Parts: sequence; structure tokens; C-alpha cells
Amino acid sequence: MDKEIIKLISEAGSVAIFPHVNADGDAIGSSLALGMALRNSGKKVWVYMEEDIPTVYKFLPGGELAGFYDESADTADLNIALDTGDVGRLGSRGEGFFMAPCTINIDHHITNTKFAHLNHVNAVSASTGEITYLLLKKLEMEINADIATCLYTAIATDTGGFQYQNTTAETHKIIAELLSTGINVGEISQRIYDNTTYEKLKLTAKSIELLELHENSKLAVVALSLEDIFSTGAKEEDCDGLVNIGRSIESVEVSALIKEKSNTEIRVNLRSKNYVDVSEVAAIFDGGGHKRAAGCTIIGTIEEAKKKIIEAIKERL
Amino acid sequence: MDKEIIKLISEAGSVAIFPHVNADGDAIGSSLALGMALRNSGKKVWVYMEEDIPTVYKFLPGGELAGFYDESADTADLNIALDTGDVGRLGSRGEGFFMAPCTINIDHHITNTKFAHLNHVNAVSASTGEITYLLLKKLEMEINADIATCLYTAIATDTGGFQYQNTTAETHKIIAELLSTGINVGEISQRIYDNTTYEKLKLTAKSIELLELHENSKLAVVALSLEDIFSTGAKEEDCDGLVNIGRSIESVEVSALIKEKSNTEIRVNLRSKNYVDVSEVAAIFDGGGHKRAAGCTIIGTIEEAKKKIIEAIKERL
Repeated sequence: MDKEIIKLISEAGSVAIFPHVNADGDAIGSSLALGMALRNSGKKVWVYMEEDIPTVYKFLPGGELAGFYDESADTADLNIALDTGDVGRLGSRGEGFFMAPCTINIDHHITNTKFAHLNHVNAVSASTGEITYLLLKKLEMEINADIATCLYTAIATDTGGFQYQNTTAETHKIIAELLSTGINVGEISQRIYDNTTYEKLKLTAKSIELLELHENSKLAVVALSLEDIFSTGAKEEDCDGLVNIGRSIESVEVSALIKEKSNTEIRVNLRSKNYVDVSEVAAIFDGGGHKRAAGCTIIGTIEEAKKKIIEAIKERL
Repeated sequence: MDKEIIKLISEAGSVAIFPHVNADGDAIGSSLALGMALRNSGKKVWVYMEEDIPTVYKFLPGGELAGFYDESADTADLNIALDTGDVGRLGSRGEGFFMAPCTINIDHHITNTKFAHLNHVNAVSASTGEITYLLLKKLEMEINADIATCLYTAIATDTGGFQYQNTTAETHKIIAELLSTGINVGEISQRIYDNTTYEKLKLTAKSIELLELHENSKLAVVALSLEDIFSTGAKEEDCDGLVNIGRSIESVEVSALIKEKSNTEIRVNLRSKNYVDVSEVAAIFDGGGHKRAAGCTIIGTIEEAKKKIIEAIKERL
């Protein structure tokens, strides 16, 4: 970690934290953890979200720091983007982010464009949560149970529950430290994982029904129209994680979830297991992410998007 | 760990290891890990299974130690039961287990009946894998990558991927040590979790379709007939883990999977989240297990078994 980053954060009187749009467990967990630690050390802190905190993460401590950014928002001494690969991922807050006299970008996405004054990008790290943990250690700030709950959630969600290849001995050492604060793993896990609704299960069943295997069963594709989603009684956010259904099949290398957002806008989530770099596939459609988990938005119908994605993946299998 | 146990194992020239019937990841992983470590230290070792190693665990190193016990089997100096709560869980190997001059019982089930000469039961431990790790440390035996792979699998599977409440800082410290041997987490996780078949997914969809919510959605029940299972093209072993579908629903405290084994024999798997002790429910039907995960076999039709189980759980909700 850059000494200048530590110095800047230590000296700032006020800090605003910017997680990426459609914030996931890592973005929200890291932001609230950093926010609480900075507040506990006497700083004025805001966490500027693009959207409301998703229902699943509302249990996280520190939610009171979160709010929406608008033009009347106070300008902080220092703006920190967390888990944000590029300015596009700041959404409508892009301009606001650069209003502060100094900006820092802390992330683990290999595609990070280093858009801030100071950038700490560690693509080897499994999660921004781990980087945030090390940052708090360097800052010599106390990690209490509330902060540990947020960091645990950040790390657990971005490592797929410690299953992905990016999970290291260091990851587990950090988790052991976090558990030492007395947090309740069973309870947190239930909040993160056992929060399904009957409707979401119906959506899972629907996705299995629609699942197609291509290319000798190495590619799994689920294309969900808005009608498919709503016919089960599920909400759009219930689609999170559905891409893992295809991934769970033994023969599958790449799993694609193709989801209608509107008549003309299709969101694509991609996961791979061993050799296909899905961040390359996403990049074709101006998306981004990691080698094994990436996403993009395609303008067109769901059928067109499906065809394009299958073509792009085919070449890499 | 009892010093006498360490001494007995150290001094034995030959050791036979007995995991429980229907061996799961913890039973098989712990048995193969202990088996390889003892073999590497020059002992003659057998792992006596009741059934073949399930397909999902065939990737584990040390499988060549595994075999079936019969009357012509060699008698070892020492027989060790691993992860086995009572003699019934040794199945047809019950008599053979007591043929050795000395027997040891190493387990973490709270219902353990301490049936051997020497018994080490640690009900606080999340898995027998953790106890086996500590045993190997006490024995000062090297934990190489093969042994680490088996122990990782044992611990990961019995903690529900480190999600269950029994997962401690110690669990993660042990996992960090195991990862330091250079094992490939991504690969092992894929073997354990991403080994689904298209048919198993169809069975998952079928189970969601059949899922019933009772008692204000606090109890989830899935009753699967043999016809339900086979109509999807799935195998009986594909039912493993289906009990977690009901458990994943936010409102659910107890999830029951009721599975027809034959016209008259019904297997029941139970999971709870916070306050229902399902080992008590299982005990009513001569079953056993842990507070949060237990099982039993009921003689009768699937409808009768369902009725009995719902009645028994109702009282505890």
C-alpha cells in the first residue's frame, strides 16, 4: 500500500466513499467497513451509493453512513472509490467523484483504468474487502465486530464463499482474524446465503428449465425475459447468482446469464472455470470484470444478445 | 487429545480406519488423510468402507487405501472409527471393528456413544477433519498436499463451505495452513461443488416444484418418491444436498427432505437454522446427528413418514 495513500487518508478531515453501481457484497461491505473505521477515528464520512443498499445487505452495520450523491452534497477533503474498475462504474456520480481536491481508487479488478489521483490496484487480491482489511491495519485503526461483519461479507461474497481460485491462505488468515472479534458466522451466512424466497426458488426452477447447453456442454446459457422473471413472482434483483446454476454443471467451462432489462437493453453475466478469460468476452461489448467473472450490457433484443454472446464465447472454448 | 491415543497410534504397526456408512466428505476426507499420513510413516494401513467411495469424492488422493471389509480381511493392531456416532453407523463392519486388540473412536457428533476402548469426541469441533488435522500435528506427521486436499474437503463439506455456526477462527487458521501446502482451492471446490449434472439440476427443479411450506413458512418439506427421482434421469445419490433448498428460504427454521428408498423404507434428512434441535427429532425415529443437521429412517410409506415428521417438528417450532 502506497505510503502517500495512508498519509492522505490519515490527514483527511472528511472522506466520501464511492462503491460501484449495482453495488455487490464486496463493494458495500468494504465501503461500510472503511466508513465506520474512519468515522470511529473522528472523521466526517459519507458513503455515496448509486442505488439503495440491496435488501440482502441491509443487515450490515454502518448503513446509516450510506446516502445518495447529488449536486448539493458536501464536498469531502478526499474521495475514495472502492471496488470500482472504471469511471463508468461510478454511474451518475462520476463527476461528483472528481470534485474533491484529492481522489483515491482502491480496487482489485485487473481491468482497472487507474482513474484517480492515487491508485492502489491489487489484481491478485480476491476481494476489495481483503485490501480494505490491510488498509485498516496500515492505518492502525481498530477492527471491531461491526467492521469485521462488513469485511467478512465483502470477502466471503467475492470469493464465492471461499471457493474461487483467488482464495489464498492469506484470505483465510484474515477471516480467522475477523472471526476473533466475535462475529457470528452462522448468522451472517444465513443473511447472505439463506435469504431466498419461495418466488426466487421458482425463478431458479424456471432458469433450469430454460438452461441450454452448447458446444459439447462446455457452454451453459440461460436467457431470461422480463416475462420469465415476473411470471414466477420474483423480482429483478432475484436474478443475482443465477449465473452459477450453469457454472455448477461439471462439463461447463463458461456460464452466461442473459437477462432482459428492457426491450432494447440486455444485461449479460459471465462466469468461467479454468481457461476462458470472460473479461475479454465482456470487453468486446464494452463491459469488464475479472478473468473468471465479468459482465456487459448489449443493446438489442434478447435473442440478438444471446446469438452474439454464444458466438464470442464459442471461439474461446 | 488423549496421550494414550497418540501413543497407541504411534506404536501400532498396522491400522484399519472405519468411516461411517454412507460416508460423506468429512468421513472419507478424514479417513484418507489419516490413512496416507500413517502409511507415509511406515505403517500398514487399510480404510474399510461400507460402500464404494461416492463419485464426487473419487478425486481425493489416497483412494487406493480404501476397500471393503469381509471376514477374510487382515486384523490390524488398531482399528480407528472416524466420524462415527455409534456402532450402528459402522453397518456390516460393526463386528469386524471390535476384532482388533485395540479400538479408537474419533468423532465430533454430540450423540456419540463412546463405543471404543479409547474415545476422543469433541462436539465443539465443526468437523472430524479438524480433529484429524490436530491429531496429525500431535503425531508430528507431515501434512503434504495430498493429505491437505483430503482434510480441506473434510472441513469444507462439514462446515457447509465454512458457513455453519460451528465454523471458528481455528477452522480458518487450519484451512490457511492447509492452503500453504500449495493445494488448488479452485480445483477442489469445483470437484466438490460444481459437479452437477443436467439431470441433477432437473431434480433440483422437481424438488422446488414439490416443496411445501408449513407452519407459517417455518418448515419446508420436500417429499421425493423414487418415481420423482428417476423421472428426471437423476440418480439416488443426486439427492445429496437437496435438503438445503428448503433451508435456503429466509423464513424457514427447519428443512426436511423425505426420500423414498423402497416401498416401505423412507430416509429423512433434517436441517435447522437457529433453535430447533433436529437431532432430537431424528432420535424419536432412532436416528441421530447434530443439533442443526440430523437424519433418520422411517419404516412406512412416504406419506406416513411425512405426516410423522411434520408432527414431530411442529411441536418444536
